[in-house]
Amino acid sequence: MRIGELARRSGVAVPTIKYYLREGLLPAGTSTGPNQADYDDTHLHRLRLVRALIDIGGLTVAGTRDVLSAVDDPFVVGHELLGAAHCAIVPARRSTRGEVRDGDGWQSARADLGGWTARRGWLISPDAPALDQLADVVSALRTLGLDELLDRLDAYADAAVTVAEHDIDTVLARAGGGEASAELMLEAVVTGTVLGEAMFNALRLLAQEDASARRFGFGRLSEEPAHAGSSEVS
Amino acid sequence: MRIGELARRSGVAVPTIKYYLREGLLPAGTSTGPNQADYDDTHLHRLRLVRALIDIGGLTVAGTRDVLSAVDDPFVVGHELLGAAHCAIVPARRSTRGEVRDGDGWQSARADLGGWTARRGWLISPDAPALDQLADVVSALRTLGLDELLDRLDAYADAAVTVAEHDIDTVLARAGGGEASAELMLEAVVTGTVLGEAMFNALRLLAQEDASARRFGFGRLSEEPAHAGSSEVS
Repeated sequence: MRIGELARRSGVAVPTIKYYLREGLLPAGTSTGPNQADYDDTHLHRLRLVRALIDIGGLTVAGTRDVLSAVDDPFVVGHELLGAAHCAIVPARRSTRGEVRDGDGWQSARADLGGWTARRGWLISPDAPALDQLADVVSALRTLGLDELLDRLDAYADAAVTVAEHDIDTVLARAGGGEASAELMLEAVVTGTVLGEAMFNALRLLAQEDASARRFGFGRLSEEPAHAGSSEVS
Repeated sequence: MRIGELARRSGVAVPTIKYYLREGLLPAGTSTGPNQADYDDTHLHRLRLVRALIDIGGLTVAGTRDVLSAVDDPFVVGHELLGAAHCAIVPARRSTRGEVRDGDGWQSARADLGGWTARRGWLISPDAPALDQLADVVSALRTLGLDELLDRLDAYADAAVTVAEHDIDTVLARAGGGEASAELMLEAVVTGTVLGEAMFNALRLLAQEDASARRFGFGRLSEEPAHAGSSEVS
């Protein structure tokens, strides 16, 4: 298809597609003449993936490129897939200023977390980017005096284990018995991590609203609970 | 304290503090002379809260101002606190382009979710911003053909209920038997939602890495599991 049809089918404007091509987020089409190229369904799929990572995952354009180059690396397999995806995703949206991590409070939170994950028996890399991300939160909570959340770190970690088991099941279901390509699996890991996170965060807000309504009684925002319907979601 | 000491104790540069004062993220200090003002511990606390919302929560400056004006509204109480916090937080970082929500795919996902939450018996407002956020994800997953994640929507929702119960417990613990001010409770809701989300997302990545290591065997990234330590986290 021509770039105009690619734009129409993806809902992404032609100048934006050209920008993604220049930035390496989308592979070049097959040249069919001067200033003219042909695109296929793999371009359409990749474009939709790019928009999902940017629009819903909140990744930057540069971060999206890094994540996609992990997807395109044929030498990343098995358990390494997940590490590669995490290493690409976490810095792709980290907004914490680097200097925060030089402080004593952060360093001490980071050291404590190393001991804590070991006591839980978690098999994780000592330099997992998510450990740094967790230290950002822990040191901020300590600074703000919000000990109530920290007191429940193990309870939240238990819930995270349940969610992670579903995540891995999802990737394995995608792999369809090991027949799927590494590219398809890594795409499942990346989208599962980024979109799965957005999905869970939204579900959590809804579950909070429900739990709050039950415990505190109704307020302005829940006078009209969502009414029944019969359609299926998936 | 003078602005210089406020900068030193918070780790936020003086020009940034002045910017937050102009933008209304931080209340003015007590004037002590021409071009001179005095700040106290409430300013220090608020400044730390602002940095946490921006650095860790990924909120914009304008979004942070909206969230904080909910904190400062003395007429928001009880269950409404949570709705006010959600209504401020969700748009404060939504990056999805509005036009996506005009599409048939999004509208149909949104309608399906209305029915789905009703079948779950969730007491939520039909126009909860998190429902729109969830529709963003569901329509993107459908477009990308990632049905495996959607098939587990109920399983993820069950886990979200567990997490939300901890969230509400945290806010109630903060309230300390109902004695706390609405401001303190709303601050707990806001920080619990924004920082609690960042905390859970990091825990989920760590739990994924552990689950992946157990199921796929070790790869490059987990050859050296974090070693044991004895320090406490909270």
